[in-house]
Amino acid sequence: MKVVVSIGGNALGETPQEQMDALYGAVRPIADLIAAGHTVALVHGNGPQVGAIHLAMEHAHNQGQPVPAMPLPECVAMTQGYIGYHVQNILGEELRRRGMERMPVTVVTHVEVDPADPAFDDPAKPVGSFYSLREKEQLEREKGYVLKEDAGRGYRRMVPSPHPHNIVEKDIILRLIEEGYPVIACGGGGIPVVRKENRLEGTAAVVDKDYASAVLAKELDADAMFLLTGVDQVAINWGRPDQKWLARADVPQMETYIAQKQFAPGSMLPKVEASLEFVRGRPGKRAFITSLPNLSVALRGEGGTEIVCPA
Amino acid sequence: MKVVVSIGGNALGETPQEQMDALYGAVRPIADLIAAGHTVALVHGNGPQVGAIHLAMEHAHNQGQPVPAMPLPECVAMTQGYIGYHVQNILGEELRRRGMERMPVTVVTHVEVDPADPAFDDPAKPVGSFYSLREKEQLEREKGYVLKEDAGRGYRRMVPSPHPHNIVEKDIILRLIEEGYPVIACGGGGIPVVRKENRLEGTAAVVDKDYASAVLAKELDADAMFLLTGVDQVAINWGRPDQKWLARADVPQMETYIAQKQFAPGSMLPKVEASLEFVRGRPGKRAFITSLPNLSVALRGEGGTEIVCPA
Repeated sequence: MKVVVSIGGNALGETPQEQMDALYGAVRPIADLIAAGHTVALVHGNGPQVGAIHLAMEHAHNQGQPVPAMPLPECVAMTQGYIGYHVQNILGEELRRRGMERMPVTVVTHVEVDPADPAFDDPAKPVGSFYSLREKEQLEREKGYVLKEDAGRGYRRMVPSPHPHNIVEKDIILRLIEEGYPVIACGGGGIPVVRKENRLEGTAAVVDKDYASAVLAKELDADAMFLLTGVDQVAINWGRPDQKWLARADVPQMETYIAQKQFAPGSMLPKVEASLEFVRGRPGKRAFITSLPNLSVALRGEGGTEIVCPA
Repeated sequence: MKVVVSIGGNALGETPQEQMDALYGAVRPIADLIAAGHTVALVHGNGPQVGAIHLAMEHAHNQGQPVPAMPLPECVAMTQGYIGYHVQNILGEELRRRGMERMPVTVVTHVEVDPADPAFDDPAKPVGSFYSLREKEQLEREKGYVLKEDAGRGYRRMVPSPHPHNIVEKDIILRLIEEGYPVIACGGGGIPVVRKENRLEGTAAVVDKDYASAVLAKELDADAMFLLTGVDQVAINWGRPDQKWLARADVPQMETYIAQKQFAPGSMLPKVEASLEFVRGRPGKRAFITSLPNLSVALRGEGGTEIVCPA
């Protein structure tokens, strides 16, 4: 079975040591999947990591250190190298423990977005440092940034989060997983680029990793996609006496729940929407929303929330 | 023909914009090679880039910003993502201009070093910030770093530069170039790791990219290796009335020149030694030391310094 697994950047902690420790736990069920003969493409988030790198480069540059200002797409690329290194290193070790010599491979991935995406008109994702009102006005004037007040702590740069519509390296990723290499791809949702004739121009945006996973899963014609999160299952009527955990739902049911505003925007809603994007019109495909420890169990149909398309 | 090309990190400038500008020039002869039907693995240096990233993370962390201290192997991994992104992006564009839709692929690469390598006893490669004598003593005490006076500007951390002896992802790189994908690998000489049973442990060291290129060229069974530098040819009797540019030399000749100390350590000497490492005992293999603009000319046997092994 061909599987796409998506892990959150927050699950990886804040320091390199925390990240390695978290990954030793995180990759075990994935190594089990691979050892059982499945092929896996792994997507990871990068929220805290890209934030720290962007902030460090910006801070050092502003303080006159010999460090260049680093645009956001370049910072995303750095997190693909950094997190990819840890994932392939630790997953490789777990595979060797199971007697498999196959080395996982991290593919630096561009993800194409549409310059006409409405997200570009409403930058809503905060990145980098907090600024004073005066600095805000200067940055808006000098760099054309959009800054908004964030969490009562000052002003932060806001960037758009457009929908991904093409994984540029999809052929390579497909080839590698078909040859049995576990692949780490679309890290942080991918490096967002806009196509201008022959050019793929990096753009200051962030792509949601779960949407990138759904596009990748479609392009790879994967059998199953796992969007991992902090909870074992999706619930409806959250926090109410009639709260109900969902073991299985099909596309029309989930669309009804979305219309009822059952899922929190920026949290469970994008995971549900990404799941629908993958399975809609594809009977037989399976999307799961579950926690990492529950991954193997969910795959056997004994846990998690499974989302499918009726035949 | 299967070709390994090694480009210096210094040739890429200091800012992201300088790096993109430099690459538009740099990848053109490489795109020509690929369009002519050759397969290419590209290795790049990362001296200025890893220095800036390491310094930025360290500076921001020391100043109390919410940024973790970042070990050197992780910083090397970041440069593989960052520089790899630019190279694959711009090389991809140059290929599309030539009507080729094939996307280059950046492979995050571990390079194994030997913990018994004598370089570990004599850390000689400076990385990161300059420190005062007091900070030096504190870092040596608290972190076990080795710091030495550097260029009269203060103390800097010194790390070893051990010899690479295995490119961990060599199978993947070979598979990809055999399928016609241009591959960017071993960026910055690779992420240096030491094998401990099933584990590949990152180690605070830097690997010379030209030695890594030679090991990669051997492991790929490449036909030719190009080590690119600032000059078109290697010279002997440098700066003397009898200075002579070398168009071609074989292994015994080059070994004689090395014994005569004709080549500057840390500059031309490692390039000559890496060339010898690739061609020694392999008649028919060709190593070239030349400048980037001279790449295509050198390949036709009309420029550069070619180093070969007598049959």
